[in-house]
Amino acid sequence: MRMVDLIAKKRDGRELTKQEINFMIQEYTKGEIPDYQMSAFAMAVFFRDMTPDERANLTMAMVESGDQIDLSEIEGIKVDKHSTGGVGDTTTLVLAPLVAAVGVPVAKMSGRGLGHTGGTIDKLEAVPGFHVEIDNNEFNELVNRNKVAVIGQSGNLTPADKKLYGLRDVTATVESIPMIASSIMSKKIAAGADAIVLDVKTGSGAFMKKLEDSKELARSMVEIGNNLGRKTMAIISDMNQPLGFAIGNALEVKEAIDTLKGQGPNDLQELCLVLGSQMVYLAEKSSSVEEARKMLEEAISSGKALEKFKQFLEAQGGDASVVDNPLNLPTAKYTFEVEAKEDGIVSEIVANDIGTAAMILGAGRATKESEIDLAVGLVLHKKIGDSVKKGEPLVTIHSNKEEVEDVIERIYESYTITQDKVKIPTLIYDHIQ
Amino acid sequence: MRMVDLIAKKRDGRELTKQEINFMIQEYTKGEIPDYQMSAFAMAVFFRDMTPDERANLTMAMVESGDQIDLSEIEGIKVDKHSTGGVGDTTTLVLAPLVAAVGVPVAKMSGRGLGHTGGTIDKLEAVPGFHVEIDNNEFNELVNRNKVAVIGQSGNLTPADKKLYGLRDVTATVESIPMIASSIMSKKIAAGADAIVLDVKTGSGAFMKKLEDSKELARSMVEIGNNLGRKTMAIISDMNQPLGFAIGNALEVKEAIDTLKGQGPNDLQELCLVLGSQMVYLAEKSSSVEEARKMLEEAISSGKALEKFKQFLEAQGGDASVVDNPLNLPTAKYTFEVEAKEDGIVSEIVANDIGTAAMILGAGRATKESEIDLAVGLVLHKKIGDSVKKGEPLVTIHSNKEEVEDVIERIYESYTITQDKVKIPTLIYDHIQ
Repeated sequence: MRMVDLIAKKRDGRELTKQEINFMIQEYTKGEIPDYQMSAFAMAVFFRDMTPDERANLTMAMVESGDQIDLSEIEGIKVDKHSTGGVGDTTTLVLAPLVAAVGVPVAKMSGRGLGHTGGTIDKLEAVPGFHVEIDNNEFNELVNRNKVAVIGQSGNLTPADKKLYGLRDVTATVESIPMIASSIMSKKIAAGADAIVLDVKTGSGAFMKKLEDSKELARSMVEIGNNLGRKTMAIISDMNQPLGFAIGNALEVKEAIDTLKGQGPNDLQELCLVLGSQMVYLAEKSSSVEEARKMLEEAISSGKALEKFKQFLEAQGGDASVVDNPLNLPTAKYTFEVEAKEDGIVSEIVANDIGTAAMILGAGRATKESEIDLAVGLVLHKKIGDSVKKGEPLVTIHSNKEEVEDVIERIYESYTITQDKVKIPTLIYDHIQ
Repeated sequence: MRMVDLIAKKRDGRELTKQEINFMIQEYTKGEIPDYQMSAFAMAVFFRDMTPDERANLTMAMVESGDQIDLSEIEGIKVDKHSTGGVGDTTTLVLAPLVAAVGVPVAKMSGRGLGHTGGTIDKLEAVPGFHVEIDNNEFNELVNRNKVAVIGQSGNLTPADKKLYGLRDVTATVESIPMIASSIMSKKIAAGADAIVLDVKTGSGAFMKKLEDSKELARSMVEIGNNLGRKTMAIISDMNQPLGFAIGNALEVKEAIDTLKGQGPNDLQELCLVLGSQMVYLAEKSSSVEEARKMLEEAISSGKALEKFKQFLEAQGGDASVVDNPLNLPTAKYTFEVEAKEDGIVSEIVANDIGTAAMILGAGRATKESEIDLAVGLVLHKKIGDSVKKGEPLVTIHSNKEEVEDVIERIYESYTITQDKVKIPTLIYDHIQ
């Protein structure tokens, strides 16, 4: 088998066999197939697409290129949730204790990563004492006992995907649905998920700006998951503005606590209930999605979800008093109000600009070496469709620096206030299964 | 300027500027742009094509990537001829003295190369004493005095093309008209041609099998040449069977001599007159192509063309007695007749198989290290449309080996003899200018 023939086959629109895809990914991972052949192949895929079988085979070949997490010691159906990413996405912090409270095992492997705010582990480390340095046995035991635990990423998961993604990034071949879908799904499957709920974001602050593209990506991931025997479904949700109010690590922990009390932002709460119901249903803890939702609503109103969060924090060394007393979370030295300059209605909040403003404060990492300041960030007071009066606060800045002119500037740039009627973005566009 | 943005631009079907193409080719030649980006770009070109301006700019960028031959010391318009390659193509050996005989300067830089038979220099070295080790001054003086000289390739011509071609070869991106056309034209322009006559082959033994593809390639090369100020035209000629009768180095020299005497194979003679008339006309030695043809016919019938060949050989140390006495050329030890096994009409001669048979005898190089045997090769007696009787010779093998079973086998495989009516292939399909 020669890579040049496989490139030509794809270039001419023909379907690669499982054997051919396995050969390609194995040899590429070993360095036997050079980058210049793989990048030509990726560009051919950009133009010729991949069939459902090719997508599933590519995903599985990438899963098999490295270690696979074995969660078989954990009882029950392990459902993972994945978001394609946006600004102020606090859903994981809410969902982990929420679905665990109704008996769904949450065995979360998470990372730190780059971005506007930290990863799930960074956020949780805002809780004094919380740590993820536990071994696999302890992790399994915790999930079996409490139904929820978080561990740091370990092992060499999907090295082929890492290598291929790095290459696609510099060869203008990122924007390819079959390759994006295979990349995401390979990571979820290698991490041991039995079932997967996908939160595919759409809108100006999402990787996929157009609804149709988001749906196509969602359909492809659902198809790959189901073809590989993992029950998979996707929600298409809005990212035309940040989700919830808080953007920042400790600030999002506080927002998650509010949401677990039933006092969180409407959009965050609704999205968590929608995603959570699907997780409960796929974990076979309810006979319908509707029943699952009722179970979750009850877990919130009864206080069970909040209790589960406390138990989860304590089990990994965290100070659970933060749940009742958020002032025990890291707090920034200064706060500044960014006030509306005119009366009107908010018609736009550019999510990426708001995210960047938070990153400038120190809430996220620009490079791997950046240090995160867990206390800082932004709290929005006005979202799209809200009326504002001149002088009313739009956003509160939580900062450890006294000089925040550049942050204020960015916040003003990201907000548009109009006198016209404003259409409030839909929160949930579609369910794909 | 970043290469990844240029790849994305081409991927999205937009036109690259001259500046962008220059940047890309310069940096690639220097090794600053890696192969993996260039191969992704090449695949994007395969799908998106290039505009006429892009093709001209790519060609010129490759010309400027290395040395350019300066032929300004040579008087007159220097017309070069290029063939896209086939089997038994003896046209250069005939054309060089033929058009020189009517006053067209032929300043030929040639190579050895791989293939079924040797390159032009190998063939000429079948003439005892002939050599191409002359310096540039001598070369210029010879062309000015005799109108014809051949020199070996020197200098670092179109390194970008060499590097890019090598990459395309292993990334399934060879088959792209804009890149093939730019590659060929860059080499001709770097070699100093003022005007270019292209012989684009079509048919089973050609790189381009389909007439429409051959025409498209020809149109693209003519357009590039004219856009870059080089008068350029193309002939589309047949390569569904070998051209002429001889395949082998000394055998082709003898066939060229026959043709210069007006006693060569009809197809070879006709193609040489068609290509030669265009060369004479582009060199402005005639006021029309028709007049040019008459001049060439007269040069043959008067013996002027043959005299020019003798003069050319002698000027570069060759033994011109071979012209009157072909036995002074290298001669193989053995000849074998391959006889028809049945009565009928020849309907097919697979040119590549016949070429490979000649190469097995030693007429050409399979690898750079192979040694050529100038004496050996094949002489066809029957071409498509000829009637044969059982036992009549189809082909004579000239060999220095006694064992030629594999060669005979290949010759039989390449010939098809039928009882049906046979359509004789057209020799000249089109003129493109």
